[in-house]
Amino acid sequence: MSTNPATGEQRSLGFEEDGPAEVVAATEIAASALDNYANRPLTWRAGMLRAMAEELENDAANLVAIASTETALPAQRLEGELRRTVFQLRFFADVVTDGSFLDATIDHATDSPMGPLPDLRRMRSPIGVVGVFGSSNFPFAFSVPGGDTASALAAGCPVVIKAHPAHPATSAATFEALRRGARRCDAPKGTVNLIFGLDAGTALVEANNTGAIGFTGSVGAGLALWETANARAVPIPFFGELGSANPMVVTESAAEERGAEIGAGLAGSMTLGVGQFCTKPGLVFVPSGEHGDVLVASTVESLSSLGTFTMLSSSIADHFRRGAEAIAAISDVRPLVQQDAGRDAHTAAQLYEVDAARFVGRDAYALREECFGPIALIVRYRSYEELRDALLASEPALTFSLFCVENDEYGQWLMELGAHRSGRVIVNGYPTGVGVSWSMQHGGPWPSTTSSAGTSVGAAAIERWLRPVTFQSTPDELLPPALQESNPLAIPRRVDGVLPHDR
Amino acid sequence: MSTNPATGEQRSLGFEEDGPAEVVAATEIAASALDNYANRPLTWRAGMLRAMAEELENDAANLVAIASTETALPAQRLEGELRRTVFQLRFFADVVTDGSFLDATIDHATDSPMGPLPDLRRMRSPIGVVGVFGSSNFPFAFSVPGGDTASALAAGCPVVIKAHPAHPATSAATFEALRRGARRCDAPKGTVNLIFGLDAGTALVEANNTGAIGFTGSVGAGLALWETANARAVPIPFFGELGSANPMVVTESAAEERGAEIGAGLAGSMTLGVGQFCTKPGLVFVPSGEHGDVLVASTVESLSSLGTFTMLSSSIADHFRRGAEAIAAISDVRPLVQQDAGRDAHTAAQLYEVDAARFVGRDAYALREECFGPIALIVRYRSYEELRDALLASEPALTFSLFCVENDEYGQWLMELGAHRSGRVIVNGYPTGVGVSWSMQHGGPWPSTTSSAGTSVGAAAIERWLRPVTFQSTPDELLPPALQESNPLAIPRRVDGVLPHDR
Repeated sequence: MSTNPATGEQRSLGFEEDGPAEVVAATEIAASALDNYANRPLTWRAGMLRAMAEELENDAANLVAIASTETALPAQRLEGELRRTVFQLRFFADVVTDGSFLDATIDHATDSPMGPLPDLRRMRSPIGVVGVFGSSNFPFAFSVPGGDTASALAAGCPVVIKAHPAHPATSAATFEALRRGARRCDAPKGTVNLIFGLDAGTALVEANNTGAIGFTGSVGAGLALWETANARAVPIPFFGELGSANPMVVTESAAEERGAEIGAGLAGSMTLGVGQFCTKPGLVFVPSGEHGDVLVASTVESLSSLGTFTMLSSSIADHFRRGAEAIAAISDVRPLVQQDAGRDAHTAAQLYEVDAARFVGRDAYALREECFGPIALIVRYRSYEELRDALLASEPALTFSLFCVENDEYGQWLMELGAHRSGRVIVNGYPTGVGVSWSMQHGGPWPSTTSSAGTSVGAAAIERWLRPVTFQSTPDELLPPALQESNPLAIPRRVDGVLPHDR
Repeated sequence: MSTNPATGEQRSLGFEEDGPAEVVAATEIAASALDNYANRPLTWRAGMLRAMAEELENDAANLVAIASTETALPAQRLEGELRRTVFQLRFFADVVTDGSFLDATIDHATDSPMGPLPDLRRMRSPIGVVGVFGSSNFPFAFSVPGGDTASALAAGCPVVIKAHPAHPATSAATFEALRRGARRCDAPKGTVNLIFGLDAGTALVEANNTGAIGFTGSVGAGLALWETANARAVPIPFFGELGSANPMVVTESAAEERGAEIGAGLAGSMTLGVGQFCTKPGLVFVPSGEHGDVLVASTVESLSSLGTFTMLSSSIADHFRRGAEAIAAISDVRPLVQQDAGRDAHTAAQLYEVDAARFVGRDAYALREECFGPIALIVRYRSYEELRDALLASEPALTFSLFCVENDEYGQWLMELGAHRSGRVIVNGYPTGVGVSWSMQHGGPWPSTTSSAGTSVGAAAIERWLRPVTFQSTPDELLPPALQESNPLAIPRRVDGVLPHDR
């Protein structure tokens, strides 16, 4: 069943939920494809990712039209997201041919203070079948054809993707594009697979042939599946990107210098995508006093002109309304923008304010939690001690945004605190917008991510799906090409402790 | 209390078990040292590791003497192990100054098909305080001054080390050497810490300030602590190296070519260190028929001349005897060498044989489990189908040893199977001996290791204690030196997608 959140119209699409046997069958066919898929040349693998990108690109108008009816996201946003998704597949094709993701390392036999050392060669190998859970809020970029799928395929792992129930038709149509790309390149049967259904997701985590999981979604669903992954007879790595409240700190000097500008930008960032980004700035630490007042007034003014939004689904909008009510119900919380929160999938922006001393209260947990949607909480601090205590009371997050001035006396301290408590520190910028690049990190300390060493965006996302293996005293003809003496793949390798550029 | 396993003599050493409050205090002082320690120059950090190496080296005679009385390991073995431990600290000093472990990556602001991308810079940062659990079987190399400690300190993480109860005096004396090295370099107070006691170990995993755990030891203890790490309010990464049965496969052709030689080598490898290595070959797959018979006869002959051994402790020897009895009790198992297994810490080598068809039996689990000590099980196979089934019935392991001939028709298949089911494949060599090098991998799929992506030996061991952080649009003066534009640390960095050697 597919629901148009803008109109409430429902269509039956014939996507039946998969039972446990069908999920197991999908993981089995994926597992049977593993060796064939993983052993093909890197250039072939990159070519398949590019073919998938092209299939999505060629079907863009159709895909955007389908996603529009299922998500209520504007066509322009969906077109941009699809461009990003296509770019991401091509980017991972480049990561594959670059070859450094294999971390190929060769030590020829030698003597050492420990005695003779044999020939040792180490590389990263595909971890197995990867289960991917698509998210609700990015029907392309973090769903069926998104970053987890692209990085897992790039690593040499077949995927079994669980479609998000909010956009089944988009999931099916984007999956068909991936499959056309795979077929064009004559990929092994079972390289990409799609399943539907809530119980099917649990079955996917439990299946013997599943080797790792990539998940983007809510804390509740993510932690339940993380526990399932750990409760298996053979536990598997679970990379869950669960979102966070994303603190944004404005120093006194920055508020003084450009409070109105920062406040207006905040209104834009917190309502981008109807606030349905895991990087939405949810907690905004603003100094008390007149400069902070100017900032807050600017945010209020900007928000008030925005009108109403349509969220991804009625249930997400209901969740947003409940979250906003929980914040409003805390004593001493001041509503600043509290427009009618609408009904069904329709809603409007909200803004609340609280003093830092109240924010840290034991009974004020609702203030510190992520609330998905166009809402933020302004936390007013009177001193840097209050600011520090409030920041330490909030939970570690995906991002940490710092607005400061040149040579700000609190810049270094806040930057270091942010680096301890997030995966990405942004200076004088907003956290929304997570570009695909070599240097991106999208993953932070618990509870924002179940594994802080992983990222779900950027080149390093491929590392989650790899496991190192060392080959000792292995004749060249038995070695994988990446480790053969003549370096037939022409990839960067550390040889006898020396990187290529030092040789 | 310290026990001499050779004589049974006990000495009270005054090492009291630490209570929970003392453990928490140790993690707090370590946490308070974190920023100061982590922010010092890499050259300073490397210098401290070298000072620690020197302190151990200068105290070698004393340390070996203490360890001799606590472990019953021969002086020559202990001297070699201490040399390795000293080398390992110096090796990690080299890894630190090399700087590539930081994975520093810079993308200058640019345009992309997704729109403008901001300046993004990513590096790995210390994960926090690392708790280290020393092992029983390597009083130096995998204990207080061992690989987990060396790699965590190299990563920039203070350590709290739980001493193994089998060698408290060795733990204390090696810890003093580390502390002297730290003091010589004026390291922050709390950079290295030592605690004693079983409950103290649990408290270490539970402590709020502990950021990750390195563990080498038994499956039982390791899994219990892994569960504790996951049950925390904030779960932490747990890198447990739990050992394995380490399959070793001999093809028909290899048995024909040099069965006697392979069999004699097996006897040496399985009794090295009294079989108390996590890489001991425990399951040896040998073809049935006359060539296999020659191999087995050679192992039997070599073992029979070895006499008795003293194990690390009476309790380890008791465990070995119970394990051997469980193997002998399985129907159709043939004892080949079943010398009097001794009493207290004294024991002798044992060898058993079973047919591959029996090995896979549901009721024969004891045959497939690791048995710590000088014991191995020969599994005789009549066909490569039987061999395959037997290998798939055994558990994934740290290592997989393959004895084959040149152009062996089964070489490629077995090599690939081994790479799927272990962390290190050895061709025509024995798995004992895990050299410290850039290319070593000591960690395999579950249950041999709780995280197959980690290694506890070699340069990559440092990766376990690091977490990536990206800095966006951050002015140079606020960036960590590793990411500043001028590259003041002169480390390898990928800039705008390009590695140094390509520029």
